[in-house]
Amino acid sequence: MSIITEKPDITFSRPMMGVVIGNTRISTVPGISAAGPTPELTLATSMLDGEIIVNGKITSAPVVPVSPTGCATPATLTRAMAELCDLQPFVVNAGLAFPPSYPAFDVYGTCGGDPREGDAVPDAEALYIRGKTLGTFLGAQSDFLLLGESVPGGTTTALCVLRALGYTANVSSSHVEHPASVKEEICAAVMKRIEEENITDPLAIVRAAGDPMMPVCAGIAATYPGTLVYAGGTQMLAVAAVVKALGGTPPRLATTVYVRDDANATFEQTAAEIGTTAWFVDPDFDNIGHPGLARYCAGEVKEGAGAGGALWLANVMGHSREDIWEKIREFMKDYS
Amino acid sequence: MSIITEKPDITFSRPMMGVVIGNTRISTVPGISAAGPTPELTLATSMLDGEIIVNGKITSAPVVPVSPTGCATPATLTRAMAELCDLQPFVVNAGLAFPPSYPAFDVYGTCGGDPREGDAVPDAEALYIRGKTLGTFLGAQSDFLLLGESVPGGTTTALCVLRALGYTANVSSSHVEHPASVKEEICAAVMKRIEEENITDPLAIVRAAGDPMMPVCAGIAATYPGTLVYAGGTQMLAVAAVVKALGGTPPRLATTVYVRDDANATFEQTAAEIGTTAWFVDPDFDNIGHPGLARYCAGEVKEGAGAGGALWLANVMGHSREDIWEKIREFMKDYS
Repeated sequence: MSIITEKPDITFSRPMMGVVIGNTRISTVPGISAAGPTPELTLATSMLDGEIIVNGKITSAPVVPVSPTGCATPATLTRAMAELCDLQPFVVNAGLAFPPSYPAFDVYGTCGGDPREGDAVPDAEALYIRGKTLGTFLGAQSDFLLLGESVPGGTTTALCVLRALGYTANVSSSHVEHPASVKEEICAAVMKRIEEENITDPLAIVRAAGDPMMPVCAGIAATYPGTLVYAGGTQMLAVAAVVKALGGTPPRLATTVYVRDDANATFEQTAAEIGTTAWFVDPDFDNIGHPGLARYCAGEVKEGAGAGGALWLANVMGHSREDIWEKIREFMKDYS
Repeated sequence: MSIITEKPDITFSRPMMGVVIGNTRISTVPGISAAGPTPELTLATSMLDGEIIVNGKITSAPVVPVSPTGCATPATLTRAMAELCDLQPFVVNAGLAFPPSYPAFDVYGTCGGDPREGDAVPDAEALYIRGKTLGTFLGAQSDFLLLGESVPGGTTTALCVLRALGYTANVSSSHVEHPASVKEEICAAVMKRIEEENITDPLAIVRAAGDPMMPVCAGIAATYPGTLVYAGGTQMLAVAAVVKALGGTPPRLATTVYVRDDANATFEQTAAEIGTTAWFVDPDFDNIGHPGLARYCAGEVKEGAGAGGALWLANVMGHSREDIWEKIREFMKDYS
């Protein structure tokens, strides 16, 4: 049974799947990110997401990758779908607060700063160039690349970057009670600084207000010769806007219907303004029989770590909703 | 014109070429390594080799990658041959003293210690496991992998590991005046410690006396499903010995005739004792018309950073000696 909204007009023979992980100090502001047991520990989540994606499980820390309310990290879905598709997913370390204990592509960035206090990504230009190098390398190994992200707090940096680029976007959130007011307060402070300093160059906007994932994913888009699909919601949308502002063709996106249908966000409208489109997957987690996943439908996580795109790709590659459900249930045994 | 000693009995359709770079503090012992303008600065050479391999040139530091006597780093040959073969070479950071400014696979190791003072690679087991993960990933993208190394001072750690594994090997050197006595003194001190502590497990030997490159390359060999060829001389021979001691099949090697014909070393004999064989390339640098390369024949560098294997692969992939020379001369314009 098909769970994608339309059959994509793409073909490929050598697909790859990767997730760019990073951190921003903004995730430690109370109320910004639900991706961790405490605000400070949200900084560990992307590193642990990478461990699930690369190794299939977490052994480096005594944690089970579920939120305080029992919601499984979407990285488990990404890994499960990679296994179903017989792909070896990779991780790119764009700038982490905690070093990984598994192999990753590294571009030697650092944890992003709080954009209210100063430049959030001082080495944005260098990371963009390294992303370009990586895009060329990945293009020599594949003709299709699904690229996701894991950056706790990243919807706030995405909001700042989208607004600074002139979009009137609202962003999605992994909180049920949407912390829009906290995000809007941060965004207002950052926009004030950007306007006062008259920052208009796209990479200068990323440097001032973004996170380290953004220039890496934008750089990959600048050179990757095959079909590149960004897997994710608002955060990848912000990167697509950066690609567009740099004069490139913004990649198309793949994400869940939960992101599309988030009444607080403006995903499809903003995508259209950027000049790109998205494919959506409806995994129907209401009926999968797993309480943690059912919460996706309740709006708690919705997307992340490339999960929406991975579910979409699995269906594109011929796996039915039933196969996908079965693989997820099997994979989730250790997490429930 | 063929410059390889025999046509190898291998076929492939998706080749990859990579170099595992790392450091050991042993390179800072005066007289051990010629790979840098001063003993302390030998620690920068593998990081700069990686920059040449990934980017084609060095822009991160105001240096020209030649030795004090004008001998070009073999990494230039590796990069030139990758370009000739239309391959995108990758670098694995096994543990560096200086962070790279270009994308690399990273296994999050650290610079190796002086094995006379304590464990040289405390995280050898973890690096071996991460190498195994990397081997599986690389195997999903390719059916042939040429894997070299750049570790200044690495022939000394290779000598320690080979001796500790029971081989009577002598090792090659990048010095014209072979610093065998300094290496032998270091090796004697390390062997004393290994015997006193009764260290016999192969990875425990690497931990005690090796360098971070070794467990990564051994791990890749443990899982890579295609044809793996180690590109290099004594250092890759030591890794092959580790693979054998761990119960695996030691990969075959490809290197220059300069390594084979080094009267101070015992390359072919040690390879036979390990149970593997090597292919050799004779690039005939005597006649290429470049003084820095002619020095290879004078015994100054001989090999390194996968260069011998890269020259061998270029010929295997159908490029004649004349094509190879022309590419090298063109590439070397910036370095002479």
